[in-house]
Amino acid sequence: MPTAQILTIGDELLSGDTVNTNLAFLGERLRQRGFEVVRALSVRDRIPEIVAAIGEVSVDLCLVSGGLGPTSDDLTAEAVALAAGVPLVRDGASEAAIAAMFAAMGRPMPDINRKQADLPAGCDVLQNPIGTAPGFAVGLPRGSYVACMPGVPREMKRMMTEQIEPRLRRRFALPDIPRRIYRLIGRGESAVAVEIEPILAAARARSPGLAAVYLHYRAATPQVLLILEGLAGEGGARATEEELRSFDAPFQAALGSSLYGIGEAELEVRVLDACRLAALTLATAESCTGGQVAARLTAIAGSSQVFQGGVVAYANGVKTAVLGVAEDTLQTHGAVSEPVARAMAEGARRALGADVAVAITGIAGPGGGTPEKPVGTVDFAVADAEGCMHKRVQLWGDRALIQHVAGIVALKLVWDRLVARGLARVGELDAGGFSGDHR
Amino acid sequence: MPTAQILTIGDELLSGDTVNTNLAFLGERLRQRGFEVVRALSVRDRIPEIVAAIGEVSVDLCLVSGGLGPTSDDLTAEAVALAAGVPLVRDGASEAAIAAMFAAMGRPMPDINRKQADLPAGCDVLQNPIGTAPGFAVGLPRGSYVACMPGVPREMKRMMTEQIEPRLRRRFALPDIPRRIYRLIGRGESAVAVEIEPILAAARARSPGLAAVYLHYRAATPQVLLILEGLAGEGGARATEEELRSFDAPFQAALGSSLYGIGEAELEVRVLDACRLAALTLATAESCTGGQVAARLTAIAGSSQVFQGGVVAYANGVKTAVLGVAEDTLQTHGAVSEPVARAMAEGARRALGADVAVAITGIAGPGGGTPEKPVGTVDFAVADAEGCMHKRVQLWGDRALIQHVAGIVALKLVWDRLVARGLARVGELDAGGFSGDHR
Repeated sequence: MPTAQILTIGDELLSGDTVNTNLAFLGERLRQRGFEVVRALSVRDRIPEIVAAIGEVSVDLCLVSGGLGPTSDDLTAEAVALAAGVPLVRDGASEAAIAAMFAAMGRPMPDINRKQADLPAGCDVLQNPIGTAPGFAVGLPRGSYVACMPGVPREMKRMMTEQIEPRLRRRFALPDIPRRIYRLIGRGESAVAVEIEPILAAARARSPGLAAVYLHYRAATPQVLLILEGLAGEGGARATEEELRSFDAPFQAALGSSLYGIGEAELEVRVLDACRLAALTLATAESCTGGQVAARLTAIAGSSQVFQGGVVAYANGVKTAVLGVAEDTLQTHGAVSEPVARAMAEGARRALGADVAVAITGIAGPGGGTPEKPVGTVDFAVADAEGCMHKRVQLWGDRALIQHVAGIVALKLVWDRLVARGLARVGELDAGGFSGDHR
Repeated sequence: MPTAQILTIGDELLSGDTVNTNLAFLGERLRQRGFEVVRALSVRDRIPEIVAAIGEVSVDLCLVSGGLGPTSDDLTAEAVALAAGVPLVRDGASEAAIAAMFAAMGRPMPDINRKQADLPAGCDVLQNPIGTAPGFAVGLPRGSYVACMPGVPREMKRMMTEQIEPRLRRRFALPDIPRRIYRLIGRGESAVAVEIEPILAAARARSPGLAAVYLHYRAATPQVLLILEGLAGEGGARATEEELRSFDAPFQAALGSSLYGIGEAELEVRVLDACRLAALTLATAESCTGGQVAARLTAIAGSSQVFQGGVVAYANGVKTAVLGVAEDTLQTHGAVSEPVARAMAEGARRALGADVAVAITGIAGPGGGTPEKPVGTVDFAVADAEGCMHKRVQLWGDRALIQHVAGIVALKLVWDRLVARGLARVGELDAGGFSGDHR
């Protein structure tokens, strides 16, 4: 397995001004392509520090992002040239491409941007169709391959997938790594592990490929993703797609309804897709989540085929005036109660003209808790033509976490309802089942 | 200025399973305390790799996060002990604290958790009141100070601020660094720089402290934060709070209404606080932002004092049925139009019983654009007792970015309206002007 490291360059990464999301993106892409990522380093915009970082590279591949801009603190090309022992040379094609980009924007090209075409002599130029900074790849004298990309995430991502990965595939003869994702809500990572590890252990005995399967747990409360990867074991044996698929049935049996999906599609996409296929429209009535559920749904392009809209009924007056919750119900049971959650869901179906509506009312904190209804108490209801179900859940954490978890639990309850009605199933679904949305 | 590096430990940071947010948090805290953060390294859960990373430390301070858990891949204490040349020793007080934590949760303590009390001999133990992993600090033989924290962000943050920073203040005799934040929406980073740099350049000549002021640009579309920090210059001179404050007037004059705030308080907090002081309630009517504006407001504890609720009017049927937008207006002008935006804002005021309402209707894409109304066309309206203002903005980017920017622009327009009515001003406001909210 070839080894790799990631070098991210920029003062802003060390000063706290920027969260280093490039690192996670590149780490995942490298792993999926079959590299073993052994370390990641971030350094400042200083020539000696970048040269030292490149000098330390002792892996097969070093991916670099950042420091390719036009200003005086963009020093990556110069530092890599020094480390590789070659001069910087202006690349005519890159200079022309930069000029063409400014021309297309109808703006004069500042002189400083020409510097972005100064690249290490003999490098392999990596085109950047959406920015002025070309990337480049060089071999170091000791044999490491170094590929440099801009730090702007969307430019970096495109250059990685379109320019660098094809080169890596050729240079390192990378195999395809089969991969299978299981998506869960409602069990913690360790509770999942207790169920899953014995199944995996038993499977490992069945073939050398299965023996080498790698299992990731990716937990982001309240979700847990199990990711199986067919890494190569001794003698190069690797689990097949079909062997990974053989975990579906035992995992489903062990994990029950907490397993809501297999494959790339996220919960929102699955809910919307199942509704679309069943020709059902959807609406939301939110109190403590304050619009987060609607925002999650509308983040998906194509959601307008299913999602009618929502009411954020934060004040009790809105619950009565817009959703038709009886004042009496609010007075008797309180805003966080089963009757109010049910009335909100039914009211949203009616007011928004939807087939299915989900309601959320709870105490996100920090104030407002009581001994009977502590902070984190959340009542949910899902109403449809066949009735209305309710669930109370006790969540923990700070306000932001309670709101976040409640929003995802609400969508999971819609999913569970669709499954119970035979309108959805856990099996594979590709991501991006939606398109053509315009709002 | 003492130097520092950050070492984050864990396979999940290199595999793409976790975005390394600890790094940005620690980088910012260190900078604010007066450290020069020179590099950040992430390594896997392997003893030799952690020992090598500690062995490379050549700075005054190394902060470490991760690898303090109970499982076999939690190896930080062992590796640091090796690097420091001391044995691991079970700390009785930590063992008792871990046992007490399990007792409080009413769960038996698994045997493996005892391992978390095995710490380098002679270390300074750092208590963890919200998790089972104690932290620890040790001096390396060469004089570097190493402080180790859990990788769980909320445990790490609390240990950093409550346990480590007081120790750093004593050990490194750190000065207070004056700091002033200017918050902008509506101008890009380079357009801001053109206005600001000459003001700063002129000021630098006025005193040695001002000469050493450090200016950060922190850009997160559509916001730009300017952060001035009174770093020490030659001879230790440092700008005073008052000297930093002297930038307020020239910055306001140069930046105009794009400067909406000075200080720690975010836009949402400022809008809510100004409404509260003016005894105005607020509501939202969202189409293309799908609930994001309501979610931003309700993320703030205490927002229920001001925010009544919102309508996510995604389908046109909801615009007519709930917000009372005339079918005719929708037919004649289209859902993305000035008349519809105005009718949505006025309808939200009425339906939700609020004093001020903001409406957003636009084309987030990827589909739905036309030559007249391309993707990114967004109409906003703000209605209050004195009338209704409209603004059309052309945004760019993908669906997620258009939704995000539109949500923030909507709040900025509410802010501008409050300023125009004399109900809000740009001056300083502390963060957290809200408390006691319970939903």
